Amino acid sequence: MKKHNFSAGPCILPQEVFQEASEAILDFNNSGLSIMEISHRSAGFVSVMEEARELALELLGLNNKGYKALFLQGGASMQFLMTAYNLLNKKAAYLNTGTWSSKAIKEAELFGEIIEVASSKDQNFNYIPKTFSIPDDADYFHCTSNNTIFGTQMKSFPNTSKSMVCDMSSDIFSRSLDFSKFDLIYAGAQKNMGPAGTTLVVVKEDILGKVDRKIPSMMDYAVHISKDSMFNTPAVYAVYVSLLTLRWIKKNGGIAAMEKRNDEKAELLYAEIDRNPLFKGFAAREDRSPMNATFNITNDSLKDRFDDAWKAAGVNGLNGHRSVGGYRASMYNALPLESVQVVVDVMKELENKA
Amino acid sequence: MKKHNFSAGPCILPQEVFQEASEAILDFNNSGLSIMEISHRSAGFVSVMEEARELALELLGLNNKGYKALFLQGGASMQFLMTAYNLLNKKAAYLNTGTWSSKAIKEAELFGEIIEVASSKDQNFNYIPKTFSIPDDADYFHCTSNNTIFGTQMKSFPNTSKSMVCDMSSDIFSRSLDFSKFDLIYAGAQKNMGPAGTTLVVVKEDILGKVDRKIPSMMDYAVHISKDSMFNTPAVYAVYVSLLTLRWIKKNGGIAAMEKRNDEKAELLYAEIDRNPLFKGFAAREDRSPMNATFNITNDSLKDRFDDAWKAAGVNGLNGHRSVGGYRASMYNALPLESVQVVVDVMKELENKA
Repeated sequence: MKKHNFSAGPCILPQEVFQEASEAILDFNNSGLSIMEISHRSAGFVSVMEEARELALELLGLNNKGYKALFLQGGASMQFLMTAYNLLNKKAAYLNTGTWSSKAIKEAELFGEIIEVASSKDQNFNYIPKTFSIPDDADYFHCTSNNTIFGTQMKSFPNTSKSMVCDMSSDIFSRSLDFSKFDLIYAGAQKNMGPAGTTLVVVKEDILGKVDRKIPSMMDYAVHISKDSMFNTPAVYAVYVSLLTLRWIKKNGGIAAMEKRNDEKAELLYAEIDRNPLFKGFAAREDRSPMNATFNITNDSLKDRFDDAWKAAGVNGLNGHRSVGGYRASMYNALPLESVQVVVDVMKELENKA
Repeated sequence: MKKHNFSAGPCILPQEVFQEASEAILDFNNSGLSIMEISHRSAGFVSVMEEARELALELLGLNNKGYKALFLQGGASMQFLMTAYNLLNKKAAYLNTGTWSSKAIKEAELFGEIIEVASSKDQNFNYIPKTFSIPDDADYFHCTSNNTIFGTQMKSFPNTSKSMVCDMSSDIFSRSLDFSKFDLIYAGAQKNMGPAGTTLVVVKEDILGKVDRKIPSMMDYAVHISKDSMFNTPAVYAVYVSLLTLRWIKKNGGIAAMEKRNDEKAELLYAEIDRNPLFKGFAAREDRSPMNATFNITNDSLKDRFDDAWKAAGVNGLNGHRSVGGYRASMYNALPLESVQVVVDVMKELENKA
């Protein structure tokens, strides 16, 4: 039986993507070869890479606007480093909204002075700081759009003349934004875009080439751009499955349609969290993430019964991150509304039997 | 029809690995979940990662000898950089045997002085330099065991008191060596070990911690070791398929058995290259690689006919790299002897009809 998968990432992808991805392991495009055994320089894979890069820009509304899309390796953690390598001359401004922002700050500090413009650490990152100012002499401003661990999401972004860099790992392709406000967007694939193993980087070319240091080839966005994201062997299969997922997003109405579905799912679950006296949301209401709903059980003695019940209902991955405890329901693009209904039903049943 | 796949990498993997890998995309270990949608922190994947790390060391004969195995991202190109980040204080010695050595040197030069102890560039890297000395004050010696592009392979390695670092991307797990001579071995998976997207690093722990610089987390072998190769989300699927391939190597007799098969294949093809007046080997005989046989056609007017013939015989990936031209037959572990016989038959037939 297929599970209701609320895993925080790697996470559920569309079932038809799994099907096509599985077939391509045995025979890619009727070539008589597995997608895993073809050269990355073959016409078949070059076309996968090109379509994936173009489709990513198209879905974000960024084609023909001076942006390039890259599929790199190393996850957001590598981007914490690459961002600083490529953009940080002296000083940069970072908004600290959780574990991932903190890690980004730590890596960037090796390259220059980091100004933490605001932090919600005082409340275990359960809200998004909204008033802060970005220093005039900052090379760029960095933020994290969605905080997977704490279940918060930035609903608005500052208007600034500085380059804006955003880690969108856990909510890219899930909601409509004016993406042209950003100069550098990066996202590990393993939420809404594909499997673990590749990272989308969307960069406005004119922000590059302004630091003095020598950048190692693998760290240099300009090198990857000059080689059409094939400076070295890319993560062939992860890029391919990302392409299948991007095609699925487009076929199903693009980001706007994803957002509508995601809002429905989030409303259904948060309504139950707020209604049911046995549960309490973790994140501040106005900052709640539709991607990751974090909540606690108010009566600890019912915890085991709840855990048994959702597991029995075929639900996977509902445990909270160790930094927060409680529960976390990750509701990425591919999760059906029915899966959320299953969790809501289990929550209601717990209340009725309690 | 399944092709005879001589691709230089990504390349052929065992058919039973493709089969199991394809099934796990739909249902991993009867979990009701795809291998791509489970958490990398789940018991199922943690056990994949641990078994892959242990099996890599076991096959190399390096367990319980102070080595750690890591599965990182970014390919050998990232290791060119990480090697220098972690080991290079002032000076290092590099043997230049081709494109990949040259790239490794270029990246390391950002971190210190690089002494090129010898180079075969004068002959377009068609041989392995054998006489050279390693400076006493070098932090380490770096070499490339097999040169995919030029078809040469180091048959012996220097005895040195320096740390020895080796890029074994294209021949790891293909031949028996005393691997304990090396202090750091790295290899992109996409030849004998698995699909593109992960890189095996085997490092002797006691060589670490001896440089003065601050190392970014993602560049730091010690950080990855301390987190059991899960500092951040690993390339889940690429590691899983690597594990399947390592299990296949073990089940089929380990490295010694692979070497025997590889030698048979290489002897069959090189014998025909040497016998058939229409062909001529590129690499010096004593340095020939059993992994990648490079050769040219002696009569250019027969080129089209030869190309049509091997393609018609179901052969894939026989074109040489643009740096060398001609042909390159890559005969990694998973390539059957029968595939080599098909190429040899086409070569003979060309001679008979010429």
